[in-house]
Amino acid sequence: MRIAVLGTGTVGEALGTGFARLGHDVQMGSRTTDNPKALAWVAKAGGAAAAGTFADVAAWGEVVVNATSGVVSLQVLSQISDALAGKVVVDVANPLDFSGGFPPTLAVVNDDSLAEQIQRALPEVRVVKALNTLTADLMLHPELLSSPTDVFLAGDDPDAKAVVRGLLLEAGWLDQNILDLGGVEAARGCEMWLPLWMRVMGSVGTGTFNVHVVR
Amino acid sequence: MRIAVLGTGTVGEALGTGFARLGHDVQMGSRTTDNPKALAWVAKAGGAAAAGTFADVAAWGEVVVNATSGVVSLQVLSQISDALAGKVVVDVANPLDFSGGFPPTLAVVNDDSLAEQIQRALPEVRVVKALNTLTADLMLHPELLSSPTDVFLAGDDPDAKAVVRGLLLEAGWLDQNILDLGGVEAARGCEMWLPLWMRVMGSVGTGTFNVHVVR
Repeated sequence: MRIAVLGTGTVGEALGTGFARLGHDVQMGSRTTDNPKALAWVAKAGGAAAAGTFADVAAWGEVVVNATSGVVSLQVLSQISDALAGKVVVDVANPLDFSGGFPPTLAVVNDDSLAEQIQRALPEVRVVKALNTLTADLMLHPELLSSPTDVFLAGDDPDAKAVVRGLLLEAGWLDQNILDLGGVEAARGCEMWLPLWMRVMGSVGTGTFNVHVVR
Repeated sequence: MRIAVLGTGTVGEALGTGFARLGHDVQMGSRTTDNPKALAWVAKAGGAAAAGTFADVAAWGEVVVNATSGVVSLQVLSQISDALAGKVVVDVANPLDFSGGFPPTLAVVNDDSLAEQIQRALPEVRVVKALNTLTADLMLHPELLSSPTDVFLAGDDPDAKAVVRGLLLEAGWLDQNILDLGGVEAARGCEMWLPLWMRVMGSVGTGTFNVHVVR
């Protein structure tokens, strides 16, 4: 599958590398064609890996991953709406606002979410909120934890959620550990998990953890 | 220990019954002395169980549990500040606002929390946020789930957190499953978990679940 990863940060790099490892063709998008981090990732990833502008890689991709900084995601995606029309956009971003220091607050919260903002601004896009609830290194490597944990899907398009579920299964997530929370509005829950995630990270001394829902 | 439980709802009843079962003297507080739910609980609990006004039971208790509806907690506690001075207040409430329907939003969120509001309004009280992250029936019954799960503490007073930890240990929570998240400000994380909790409940079809932090 052609997967375009928007964003060159820790999350973009981890997902780009992870999807390439699974055999997908991956291109990394940024604001310019000569982004040093994107070019370094291409050199490291090898194979079919490539880099380009947000618009170029989005137009090329079948699935587009939003791994841009959450506070700029809406702007970035709105500028390439034509390239995104009809496509599955996996929104892994968190709208973290660090302007007040650490821990950050959320720039959109409670009665709205970043994923909903994106879905409203780009109604022809099929947004699926996923993987924003755990650290980058674990997103496509559930086996790094000592026992199975859970991830969440939220989105209005069942087919789009099925595509994302398929990618997660390829990465080793177990089907029963991929919880469908419902429509894109449920992304509020996924994003509002971050404030607790950050305090748990402080308590356990590592971001390499995830939660398991125990019944 | 003399434990005053403020609130006659599902949470107050579960905690009152649970603490009595553990051998504590429990009194349930409400706005009036003839609250039918409080009197029914007393009749059912037997022993030293009693009911009274918020002020009466708070003055009597060594530890006071805030199990009132989160949107009125601040008002209720502010009215009995003299009775609460110096005491440990275990804040298990969630500031859920159902005025817009289900799922509710949070009446205080992101850069503040109910626990922080209480701590600011009643500086002589030692607030500990705890147990707001799971359903009432599980709060003092961790053994009802199939494997160990985690609960959280947030508060500025280490001694007060030790008291609450002690009560949780009595109820069967394992020490390593009681995560100290830091000062009362960390209650933001605990309260902002609710929107995800509600969607997970919808996904798994029951509120009888809790999370385990897996490393």
